[in-house]
Amino acid sequence: MISRAVVQTAPRTLELRELPVPEIGPEDALLAVEACGICGSDYEQYEGALPVRFPVIPGHEPVGRIADIGREAERRWGVRQGDRVCVETLIPCGFCRNCVSGAYRLCSGHRRMNAYGYLSLDLPPGLWGGYADYLYLEPHALVHKIDERIAPEIATLFNPLGAGFRWAVEMPRLQVGETIVILGPGQRGLTSVIAAREAGAGCIIVTGLARDARKLALAKEFGADVTIDIETQDAATAVREATGGRMADIVIDVTAYATDAVNQAVNLARRGGRVVLAGTKGATPVPDFFSDRIVVKELMILGAFGVDYPNYERAIRLIESGKYPLERMHTQTLPLTEAERALRLLAGHEPAEEAIHIALVPGDRR
Amino acid sequence: MISRAVVQTAPRTLELRELPVPEIGPEDALLAVEACGICGSDYEQYEGALPVRFPVIPGHEPVGRIADIGREAERRWGVRQGDRVCVETLIPCGFCRNCVSGAYRLCSGHRRMNAYGYLSLDLPPGLWGGYADYLYLEPHALVHKIDERIAPEIATLFNPLGAGFRWAVEMPRLQVGETIVILGPGQRGLTSVIAAREAGAGCIIVTGLARDARKLALAKEFGADVTIDIETQDAATAVREATGGRMADIVIDVTAYATDAVNQAVNLARRGGRVVLAGTKGATPVPDFFSDRIVVKELMILGAFGVDYPNYERAIRLIESGKYPLERMHTQTLPLTEAERALRLLAGHEPAEEAIHIALVPGDRR
Amino acid sequence: MISRAVVQTAPRTLELRELPVPEIGPEDALLAVEACGICGSDYEQYEGALPVRFPVIPGHEPVGRIADIGREAERRWGVRQGDRVCVETLIPCGFCRNCVSGAYRLCSGHRRMNAYGYLSLDLPPGLWGGYADYLYLEPHALVHKIDERIAPEIATLFNPLGAGFRWAVEMPRLQVGETIVILGPGQRGLTSVIAAREAGAGCIIVTGLARDARKLALAKEFGADVTIDIETQDAATAVREATGGRMADIVIDVTAYATDAVNQAVNLARRGGRVVLAGTKGATPVPDFFSDRIVVKELMILGAFGVDYPNYERAIRLIESGKYPLERMHTQTLPLTEAERALRLLAGHEPAEEAIHIALVPGDRR
Amino acid sequence: MISRAVVQTAPRTLELRELPVPEIGPEDALLAVEACGICGSDYEQYEGALPVRFPVIPGHEPVGRIADIGREAERRWGVRQGDRVCVETLIPCGFCRNCVSGAYRLCSGHRRMNAYGYLSLDLPPGLWGGYADYLYLEPHALVHKIDERIAPEIATLFNPLGAGFRWAVEMPRLQVGETIVILGPGQRGLTSVIAAREAGAGCIIVTGLARDARKLALAKEFGADVTIDIETQDAATAVREATGGRMADIVIDVTAYATDAVNQAVNLARRGGRVVLAGTKGATPVPDFFSDRIVVKELMILGAFGVDYPNYERAIRLIESGKYPLERMHTQTLPLTEAERALRLLAGHEPAEEAIHIALVPGDRR
Repeated sequence: MISRAVVQTAPRTLELRELPVPEIGPEDALLAVEACGICGSDYEQYEGALPVRFPVIPGHEPVGRIADIGREAERRWGVRQGDRVCVETLIPCGFCRNCVSGAYRLCSGHRRMNAYGYLSLDLPPGLWGGYADYLYLEPHALVHKIDERIAPEIATLFNPLGAGFRWAVEMPRLQVGETIVILGPGQRGLTSVIAAREAGAGCIIVTGLARDARKLALAKEFGADVTIDIETQDAATAVREATGGRMADIVIDVTAYATDAVNQAVNLARRGGRVVLAGTKGATPVPDFFSDRIVVKELMILGAFGVDYPNYERAIRLIESGKYPLERMHTQTLPLTEAERALRLLAGHEPAEEAIHIALVPGDRR
Repeated sequence: MISRAVVQTAPRTLELRELPVPEIGPEDALLAVEACGICGSDYEQYEGALPVRFPVIPGHEPVGRIADIGREAERRWGVRQGDRVCVETLIPCGFCRNCVSGAYRLCSGHRRMNAYGYLSLDLPPGLWGGYADYLYLEPHALVHKIDERIAPEIATLFNPLGAGFRWAVEMPRLQVGETIVILGPGQRGLTSVIAAREAGAGCIIVTGLARDARKLALAKEFGADVTIDIETQDAATAVREATGGRMADIVIDVTAYATDAVNQAVNLARRGGRVVLAGTKGATPVPDFFSDRIVVKELMILGAFGVDYPNYERAIRLIESGKYPLERMHTQTLPLTEAERALRLLAGHEPAEEAIHIALVPGDRR
Repeated sequence: MISRAVVQTAPRTLELRELPVPEIGPEDALLAVEACGICGSDYEQYEGALPVRFPVIPGHEPVGRIADIGREAERRWGVRQGDRVCVETLIPCGFCRNCVSGAYRLCSGHRRMNAYGYLSLDLPPGLWGGYADYLYLEPHALVHKIDERIAPEIATLFNPLGAGFRWAVEMPRLQVGETIVILGPGQRGLTSVIAAREAGAGCIIVTGLARDARKLALAKEFGADVTIDIETQDAATAVREATGGRMADIVIDVTAYATDAVNQAVNLARRGGRVVLAGTKGATPVPDFFSDRIVVKELMILGAFGVDYPNYERAIRLIESGKYPLERMHTQTLPLTEAERALRLLAGHEPAEEAIHIALVPGDRR
Repeated sequence: MISRAVVQTAPRTLELRELPVPEIGPEDALLAVEACGICGSDYEQYEGALPVRFPVIPGHEPVGRIADIGREAERRWGVRQGDRVCVETLIPCGFCRNCVSGAYRLCSGHRRMNAYGYLSLDLPPGLWGGYADYLYLEPHALVHKIDERIAPEIATLFNPLGAGFRWAVEMPRLQVGETIVILGPGQRGLTSVIAAREAGAGCIIVTGLARDARKLALAKEFGADVTIDIETQDAATAVREATGGRMADIVIDVTAYATDAVNQAVNLARRGGRVVLAGTKGATPVPDFFSDRIVVKELMILGAFGVDYPNYERAIRLIESGKYPLERMHTQTLPLTEAERALRLLAGHEPAEEAIHIALVPGDRR
């Protein structure tokens, strides 16, 4: 059997290859990819800003059907051939101190980068990325069953929605009735709105730029109480008004590259408040960063990078519930052959067309 | 009755005045000050870097004997005339949302600055500072009894030691066996060593400069496992060696002014580690602050400013136990009339004489 | 000015008296009671099962308008004459170790029972109960403003709803997606449903008896997923089915007198689950209580008795939001003169009429 | 190669057999047992009170040297042939929801009992118990290196000491300065004393019977402040005195069979206190168990059964430190051939000889 796969061989260089599909033993499985979500970091990888070892098949948000599976794997994962599943990005080793303590996000047991979309094609059996017809599921892969009735491209939202639950709710311990400010209305900003709404936030405020009007409107549909266009409004003033002067219990920064958002997060948080930093800034320093503000306000700042099993479960159960019109944030579905265009779209480099969430689908496979 | 008091009327301007001592009602009390610890911030207040409303009696680490007390106050505080007590810096309102929720450190109920050493002399009855013969104890003052046998100048260490317990142990939830790196071997660095030792830290590492040799040696006496002179050693290398490559579970920055310590704290913490920022930087920004490191390492950064009731209690019980030779960190006892010299000493502006902890004592009063 | 008040002078003995209304100083206030909720414990007090010092004005769930208020109290509470407010049951001392640490539920600073509805009439100024025209608000009373548009008898639900938030959500740290089983569909069972729904519970199961059919139906209206009539269904089987064999993450017992519910709670919880015990059993022991089950399943059992400021705030904000048809659980409004009938109704001693939540209203006052 | 092993074939029936030693592949290893600690539950298993599938090799606290090891196992565990290691009782599956979330104590992924000392001899390769010359280390076994210089029989204390850290410190979140009452001065009572002392407990109180005089004296050597002989002293009075009326912040029950200890634990805890139940009662109910006391005092009751990786690490590091004279609690070392006598000794059925901790050692092996 043969799998097509988008292979990146160098920065900004993708090609479609045909690769052999491996035999499956008792502990592993093969996924027939139905859709793969595109993450903001996929563009950084495409550009070369996020360094990986080439050649590599990108794609770390895969959803598909179990095409073949070993007996032991069936038992462990509770799935059978034909089931639709979501696959977590990380492949933990299952043995190191972090894995054994439940922090497999910090797994240090492999000697290699242990995540789908980042493992080199050179490591057998090669099919380590979601931009392909088939994905290899190794014994420690983390697999979640999802209801048949969820369209695969919507199912890929399990990934940003899992992040919303871990970053906006679990990490800052959002309590019923609290005010959360979400800086940035992209995929993870919108899923943070949903997660915060589910957890009973009292007031959800989302900031964005003038060009984000559609996303901010969508944030309101998903449950935001207030949206702020920071090009025309002063965020601090708006948050002060919305909170009767108390400022935010929680601020989460999910903007990319915007270093100033870090300072803004610190400023918008109330004394004793919590700030989640989940947006990376391309290795750029934050200018005018006054640590005294953290000290004097007794803030808690939390770096958020990965997601984990319970939060992916939360996301999948919520997707299955149909409670939110998630299809409203899924803007484009493209075939494997248009991977490059999909990446440019998500990065906002196709000005004519706005994108929030995009999925690649293999379509017919052999 | 008359109380002498050191009154600050302008930056760098102190004078000794004689002030009337107020009458005491059923809910308040009068403290005959026996000693007042000098905090690093006292020098900032002296210089004018920390703005206060003049005229003011400085001193927020007072210890003394109850000279007069109302009946209701006796019952509430469980103390009587003649008892030796430590007085907390903050005077909470007791009614606001923060006070009612146990976060009186963040009390917002007064319209004025509610702390000993900062309230203006103009607010009756005026005796709001520890650099004096007598201190007024208002109904919401927080008073802790301490054993008679503890010398007053040693008893004033309840303040930095309470900080050690809250900042180095409680806030970062130090667990038995963990590694903590303490940046800065001053008063609060040394008390952090003691607090971490009491809580069962597995490895305590303290950094300092070449001129801190004596303080670093004292850190070892108090229980530090490793000390690092960062002028001759690379801190990251030393921490890597001491931890077998794991780096620190917790890093606490108790340096003043050193903005680079913030970056160092972030670098010395392990992935998933905790950083406590407890040193202020004179409103100076941190250069080359890369927030991405917080994100990628999933750090928790905690701003630490105040101390609270349970941690002062921990400190006082430990002082009473005599378990640590605390007198080794108390370097000078000076009379009220030498307040200015005491402040310059603590700030390191008297090069011939090294100071770690200093107390002012009123001596004979009328 | 005169206040009518229902005074209990002995078990099962109530009389309507006229009492003088006190003068108000700068730190206290007077509440014109508009409605007072009736709690299950009010009946125990009426019967004599819950001992109090007579004479006493019962009623610890008062809502009303500020009739008179001192200047300092105005500032502290942020309310003015004419505002509608909810008053917490407890009157903390504001000074003891528990109050200072945020655990004023456990306040030990008064020498007397410090709660509305329990303080004797003999303690001046006497008006310490909600079954009256006026209630005295002492300086440390905890007062929450509530929107004018909320009918007073609905506003009294702040009390059971605050319990729902603290007991069913905050104490067991309910996470989004978790399964909670609520034993007992009374006032606090129904408010637990609402609180769990707000906090994002994944599956809410409520148990009751055959005679609770209407309450169980209401539980579904408020968001319960499954209801179980334990007289015709096996609760363990039903929970196993509803959870795919996992059993409950959280079980909360809000039944009164039913000692067997304690064992059932232990049995319905999953390994590593949490059990909240919030229903008292009239000082009756639990037969066949096997502590080994707690050990082997590593359960966490939490005793829940009081409520606190943040949870009352959550309740009040939710009542104001109008999100739930709370009026559906308010079954009767009765005048002061029918206090006895109200108590018998709530206890289920008036078989013809079903009661869930009842409020007493003073009606016209002089 | 051949391994001798004590095999239990029925209640109270042990025999010494010779069994073949398996070949080792890349992911597993073989342990040459040097000592195996005897747990109280070993006697229950011997008697038949704790049911297991026969034939079985008992022993779940093994320490030994790596006799043979695969390459992959070497890398994962960071050990080599000849290293001395402690082996955890549980063999987690590494794949189930509990394992992935860090709660491998609750692992539900195997279809069989997954613990050393309990797996049947019939399951290949058979060597699943510590009462033998060799133990099979399967890929998911959890192995901790321990310093060469620690005698094997002392090293086996990693097991009860790990329990001390998890049950007396981590689970009830013991804070510096708190009072803990430990019911029962056996192995786990004594290790709870050490763990509480390490974590900075302010006051450690241990209860026992008249016949426990030696154990109570040892508790004092290990750091207990107060010991109570409950046959001659009233425990509640003694705790009240020792705590100035506050009662205990934490009570831990590590008695076996004594159901009354559960009620005592509830009584000795202060309002808002925590109770850890870690002693099983042979499936006997607790008479006169009043759940109302848990409710009214707002207690937290924690069932404690297993231990986990970080706490075993804490125990091993502390054993290596030599800080406590642990050899004082190790009372007997016996050869494999005297397994039966060892079990009777530990259970107190050899009246002439007192036992606290016993280890079996294989001695010369072939």
